Amino acid sequence: MMNKNPEIGIKATTAGATAASGFLTAGVACGMRYEDRRDVGLLLSEEAGGTAAVVITTNVVKAPPLLVTEYAVESGNVRAVVVNSGIANAATGKRGLEDAYTMQALAAAELGLEPKEVAVASTGVMGEYLPMDRVETGIKEAVASLSGEGSGFAEAILTTDTRTKEAAARVRIGDASVTVGGVAKGSGMIHPNMATMLAFVTTDAAVEKECLQNTLRRATEKTFNRVTVDGDTSPNDMVLLMANGAAGNEPLTSDSPDHPAFEETVEAVMRELTKEIARDGEGATKLVEVVVEGAKDEASAAALAKAVVGSNLVKTAVFGEDANWGRVLNAMGYAGVSFEPEGVELYFGPVKVFADGEPVPHDEAEANATLAEDEVLISARLQEGTASATAWGCDLTYEYVQINGSYRT
Amino acid sequence: MMNKNPEIGIKATTAGATAASGFLTAGVACGMRYEDRRDVGLLLSEEAGGTAAVVITTNVVKAPPLLVTEYAVESGNVRAVVVNSGIANAATGKRGLEDAYTMQALAAAELGLEPKEVAVASTGVMGEYLPMDRVETGIKEAVASLSGEGSGFAEAILTTDTRTKEAAARVRIGDASVTVGGVAKGSGMIHPNMATMLAFVTTDAAVEKECLQNTLRRATEKTFNRVTVDGDTSPNDMVLLMANGAAGNEPLTSDSPDHPAFEETVEAVMRELTKEIARDGEGATKLVEVVVEGAKDEASAAALAKAVVGSNLVKTAVFGEDANWGRVLNAMGYAGVSFEPEGVELYFGPVKVFADGEPVPHDEAEANATLAEDEVLISARLQEGTASATAWGCDLTYEYVQINGSYRT
Repeated sequence: MMNKNPEIGIKATTAGATAASGFLTAGVACGMRYEDRRDVGLLLSEEAGGTAAVVITTNVVKAPPLLVTEYAVESGNVRAVVVNSGIANAATGKRGLEDAYTMQALAAAELGLEPKEVAVASTGVMGEYLPMDRVETGIKEAVASLSGEGSGFAEAILTTDTRTKEAAARVRIGDASVTVGGVAKGSGMIHPNMATMLAFVTTDAAVEKECLQNTLRRATEKTFNRVTVDGDTSPNDMVLLMANGAAGNEPLTSDSPDHPAFEETVEAVMRELTKEIARDGEGATKLVEVVVEGAKDEASAAALAKAVVGSNLVKTAVFGEDANWGRVLNAMGYAGVSFEPEGVELYFGPVKVFADGEPVPHDEAEANATLAEDEVLISARLQEGTASATAWGCDLTYEYVQINGSYRT
Repeated sequence: MMNKNPEIGIKATTAGATAASGFLTAGVACGMRYEDRRDVGLLLSEEAGGTAAVVITTNVVKAPPLLVTEYAVESGNVRAVVVNSGIANAATGKRGLEDAYTMQALAAAELGLEPKEVAVASTGVMGEYLPMDRVETGIKEAVASLSGEGSGFAEAILTTDTRTKEAAARVRIGDASVTVGGVAKGSGMIHPNMATMLAFVTTDAAVEKECLQNTLRRATEKTFNRVTVDGDTSPNDMVLLMANGAAGNEPLTSDSPDHPAFEETVEAVMRELTKEIARDGEGATKLVEVVVEGAKDEASAAALAKAVVGSNLVKTAVFGEDANWGRVLNAMGYAGVSFEPEGVELYFGPVKVFADGEPVPHDEAEANATLAEDEVLISARLQEGTASATAWGCDLTYEYVQINGSYRT
């Protein structure tokens, strides 16, 4: 059976970082910031000789773990990740960099790997040092509890997230059935260009390294870089993609006829994780999806969609279930993209509210009702071209203010 | 007495649009959106032959009144402004443009002026048409009640603002004592590059038209374009500067030795109005001032300061009185400016919290206490150059969410 449309399996017990063959995970509690909360995670490919790719934050301030991971991916064959939540190890200077290297070395030693085979990630508050004794204890416990069954890994990477985020999809590559799975964390400081977001995507496909990196970069552009919770990128954002080849396919390159199907599958998994991140944004009660069609090019469509989904005024209107389309048009207007406002049609769900430069008479209650759904769709059709893009976000609520007015205390 | 440091008179009875000689104002209630609330304002220079300058929104979506005003300023000698609040007359297509021209014509006829001598401004909800019969009644009443005494003009331009915003300053130009005064409205959709903000600045100085326009543009860049409440620019933003020459000075040009003192005075008045707008942002409890020093150039300093003051995470931290400096550094990191994070020093008030790439041990309660003040100062010193800039904003509160979750209802 040729299956170009990946079967998405979200939140199933088989979804997550161990959905693909040959991956083990663990998640343990070391008391990093809270008692009895999983805060150290470990992900390991049982296969040697796989490939890995990474995309990190565009923030000028980059946390030490990212530098360590970037170097490892470039110079080695990363097949394991050690991650902690609670403390971001960001803005921690030389000591922070030493701590990140120590985390890498400790995990490598316990796993019997070279340090450059281990990636490092951290998430949590900035400006605090890691309690390295606890980290060490956590790593030892995590190695001892590695498992191919659903584990606490997805849980161990969370901060103010209210739930785990997992997805998986399968696709046929030649004779092999390939699985792509992944976990992510989101919550606050979420914004296009790698937000405070960690995502670990695994596949049992065999993929040539440069091809894997390009696949990840493109898929990130269309998924994680189109989510915003609060407009703040973070120094710790990272998405790592590991391919261990356990599926036994001919290694994929950018020229492989099956590469588009593989990339589509990676993108599908990452899109599901992206939506989960948006849905679980700090204080969020709704997932907001903004679709822009008829734009000059995809970058313009994405910029317009991201401006709308990132607007505090749109986000509060969604929270208040007020189909205030003026704010949507207004946000498009400052997206940095030129367009003819008279050529724009705006919709809340199926309800057309604006066209030909003027309000379209409509049942306001019907438009407002589309904002009462768990998933809200706002769409704009332009007459500038044929490109489209989707961006995801959430509403802005009292809870967001409450969470972020007292995060550290 | 040479007075290069303008005496600022804020909120004094003499401050506002009639502080300078030869200006009259009025503010009346025509029931535009609410009963018994002033919603039509009129500003008139008694002197013919003055000059005017305008800076309007950078939003792609521009409300019809702005187009009418821009054309009037370019082609005529604007000496009056008619403004309404409650309905923005934005996203209203051809009918909206006709309504804006009608407002201009009605005011001109009542005042005995040419239409092109009258500027038009609107603020309020988007996507609704003006009730032109009420507007007409309002204009007639306003003309009848024009006065040089403190009037309801500053009140008539408000929307969700909780108070009027007025300022004035004096400076000696040659033998003449020149006054610059102004009023503004702010509240929501406030962001750099002309936010939902209206400001009308008047002076009795005689100023050559091109010089006036350049003065306004530069002063706007350093004041109104450095305020953010919620990151949303609006289609209705406008700052208009009228100079009627009543002070009797030799007309100022860009080459006049006294021009710098005049520009400094205009900037001082606009800076006070800017701070008033920030302080009275929707739901705000505090004015936040962010100062960046040691930047490569002023544009970089301004971009860094605006990123910090615009960050939802910084804004909620200020609300929660949590001196979470990581969020400040983080916001600088995504400002689109390159800099060495290790060269940054961060301060909350006088308390140094970060330097040399690492946290500086400090009394956290002392740092938090600086956020309990009505005016909060956050500063960053870089080692990239000698340029500095200040940006203004406010905290993000439950009240902001409440106001914007139910603005139209």
